[in-house]
Amino acid sequence: MMKVTVSRKAQFNAAHRLYNSAWSDERNDEVFGKCNNPNFHGHNYTLTVSVKGTIDPETGYVMDMKVLKELIHEHVEKPFDHRNLNLDTEEFKTLNPTAENIVVVIWKRLRPNINPELELKVLLHETERNFVEFDGEGV
Amino acid sequence: MMKVTVSRKAQFNAAHRLYNSAWSDERNDEVFGKCNNPNFHGHNYTLTVSVKGTIDPETGYVMDMKVLKELIHEHVEKPFDHRNLNLDTEEFKTLNPTAENIVVVIWKRLRPNINPELELKVLLHETERNFVEFDGEGV
Amino acid sequence: MMKVTVSRKAQFNAAHRLYNSAWSDERNDEVFGKCNNPNFHGHNYTLTVSVKGTIDPETGYVMDMKVLKELIHEHVEKPFDHRNLNLDTEEFKTLNPTAENIVVVIWKRLRPNINPELELKVLLHETERNFVEFDGEGV
Amino acid sequence: MMKVTVSRKAQFNAAHRLYNSAWSDERNDEVFGKCNNPNFHGHNYTLTVSVKGTIDPETGYVMDMKVLKELIHEHVEKPFDHRNLNLDTEEFKTLNPTAENIVVVIWKRLRPNINPELELKVLLHETERNFVEFDGEGV
Amino acid sequence: MMKVTVSRKAQFNAAHRLYNSAWSDERNDEVFGKCNNPNFHGHNYTLTVSVKGTIDPETGYVMDMKVLKELIHEHVEKPFDHRNLNLDTEEFKTLNPTAENIVVVIWKRLRPNINPELELKVLLHETERNFVEFDGEGV
Amino acid sequence: MMKVTVSRKAQFNAAHRLYNSAWSDERNDEVFGKCNNPNFHGHNYTLTVSVKGTIDPETGYVMDMKVLKELIHEHVEKPFDHRNLNLDTEEFKTLNPTAENIVVVIWKRLRPNINPELELKVLLHETERNFVEFDGEGV
Repeated sequence: MMKVTVSRKAQFNAAHRLYNSAWSDERNDEVFGKCNNPNFHGHNYTLTVSVKGTIDPETGYVMDMKVLKELIHEHVEKPFDHRNLNLDTEEFKTLNPTAENIVVVIWKRLRPNINPELELKVLLHETERNFVEFDGEGV
Repeated sequence: MMKVTVSRKAQFNAAHRLYNSAWSDERNDEVFGKCNNPNFHGHNYTLTVSVKGTIDPETGYVMDMKVLKELIHEHVEKPFDHRNLNLDTEEFKTLNPTAENIVVVIWKRLRPNINPELELKVLLHETERNFVEFDGEGV
Repeated sequence: MMKVTVSRKAQFNAAHRLYNSAWSDERNDEVFGKCNNPNFHGHNYTLTVSVKGTIDPETGYVMDMKVLKELIHEHVEKPFDHRNLNLDTEEFKTLNPTAENIVVVIWKRLRPNINPELELKVLLHETERNFVEFDGEGV
Repeated sequence: MMKVTVSRKAQFNAAHRLYNSAWSDERNDEVFGKCNNPNFHGHNYTLTVSVKGTIDPETGYVMDMKVLKELIHEHVEKPFDHRNLNLDTEEFKTLNPTAENIVVVIWKRLRPNINPELELKVLLHETERNFVEFDGEGV
Repeated sequence: MMKVTVSRKAQFNAAHRLYNSAWSDERNDEVFGKCNNPNFHGHNYTLTVSVKGTIDPETGYVMDMKVLKELIHEHVEKPFDHRNLNLDTEEFKTLNPTAENIVVVIWKRLRPNINPELELKVLLHETERNFVEFDGEGV
Repeated sequence: MMKVTVSRKAQFNAAHRLYNSAWSDERNDEVFGKCNNPNFHGHNYTLTVSVKGTIDPETGYVMDMKVLKELIHEHVEKPFDHRNLNLDTEEFKTLNPTAENIVVVIWKRLRPNINPELELKVLLHETERNFVEFDGEGV
């Protein structure tokens, strides 16, 4: 059974702040520097969602990219785009919105909505020079 | 034996139409939407071919990129560039030219022309936001 | 009155063929080469529409980019995306769809729909390496 | 006297909110939509600063790009990067931080620090698809 | 007479060193810093050549991009690609190969080979963040 | 234990020449072509360093990207940027500076400076179309 990976890119623009509420302000400043600005800063996050599986011989698709696009819109763009990650999303009220934690949260939001026979990997660019990737290893 | 991956990008501009001849027109429209336009549409396909193997100690090359460039030209660009995939290529007279099927066809065209000791992976961008990858898994 | 330029990018994927019906096949092949394939080829056309004008002091906008995005969708993407330019659009039934002619046609489609106090410029990429620009000079 | 344009790119990551304090909340929502989220959202702003002038025959420079890079760092990146434009910068406490207003503010911050014989133009990308440009016309 | 601008991108990879032979080593180091390394360093120079003129009604072209591509190959890529600008090219044996001087030299090499009715502009990227442009102003 | 990959991009501009001192000039020309120019040529090398490991629950980081950025600066940019690889670096006095050999050398320079619990992968673009990758396989 030949396996092909299909990927779709999307984008969301969000504000955030890196902060550990269990730490003193000094410790937060020391570790997170300017990323700890209490008034927040923001990013154009670029998201690439990849699914791997066999090609359906009737459609020639591993998964219809229009469906994948809609899933990303529903489960990532709608809750995250033009939001403040710390204030407007459930997960990051208690979890620090580092790129690493965001990519895991996105993977967990998408996983139940994608055919379990398909492997899922998520790539998240915080800036053009900084990015993270998660494929569910260790979940 | 250290293994390094060497990649080369190329591009071809082609027309295509997504269509399953075993289906009714209604079913084709329902599944493939505007991609089923009988007059065709087209793309700038961007291709990245990657080979993985050991470095030749004399040349410092895994594979001469000039040779890889020529192979891509001969086996992909010449038959596909400025063509109608459905009408002008053998494989897609009967096979639906989805990105998934195109990347598998390209992999199969290149594989016999590359040293069998080298692993081969092909990445194909249909648009900046949609792309597929195949490394021969399951062949 | 300070003048600022506001730009919005979009994309459409189309098939086309370069061809002059007044010429012999030999002359067409000689001038247009592989671009003259009677079965068509295609491109991901990238469009950048720029409008220049004064900033509205109440909104801070020269022109609402959401409105500009909608105009591009209505007047360019809807008629051109996933189409065959030669067969599916009025203008190119008689006009050769070179990048130069396409950019002029797009400019003429957009101009009546944009406030006449705003200057309009259109940039069209046919490939990453070939592109054209028109700002209405000489119309 | 031959004139050459020299450009330098930079980036800053900031939070902002589009909002007109003279308007009702309903009017703000109607005009600015999701950009009016009171908890802010954010962007990776990409900045291209261009100066045009004659080439110094001794150095071969119009302006030393290292100096231009430092000016951008001092007058744009330091005050704007990892900031909330509405809360952390003087200009946008009263001015709506649309892309248009930001590009004019940046131009005005840079102009006094650059040789008056050099023309100055600033290009600001808010996202990959939305950008604005100002060259001082009408100031 | 409508005027359209047509552009073509190309690339050449070259070594160079910034250096003024009329200066002391100390002065060269002070002004050019690490760019003055006597053993040279190098760049992937990206070149965009733009010509502006009227559309030929028979071909739909301002200028055949295949011809423009060939001219760039003949007059820029052949003499500059995989060369040391200081040692291997006539102009830079005496002229400091700054981006500004290179873009003027390229413009002067191309100008006599392009129809005088067409305006010519050259854009040269030395890195993704540093670039220069020349349109013949002041020649 | 969930594992996330964190990546950071950097760039260095260097001159080099491909050459095997054990071969005749003819053999060098035959194999390396224009890359064998004795006066050198050069590139903007783009480097992407990826580390994979578990997320620290206190910081939300796999590895602080500021630290990764500093390591790349210290161990790659400082010795390689604005240098002649063949003449100015220890490794390439005897080793041919092909992209393959450069990526292995960079991996070996970084490996001792990164927590051994983190996996390390290095991607090196010599041009936009040619690139290589090494993850330590076979060391």
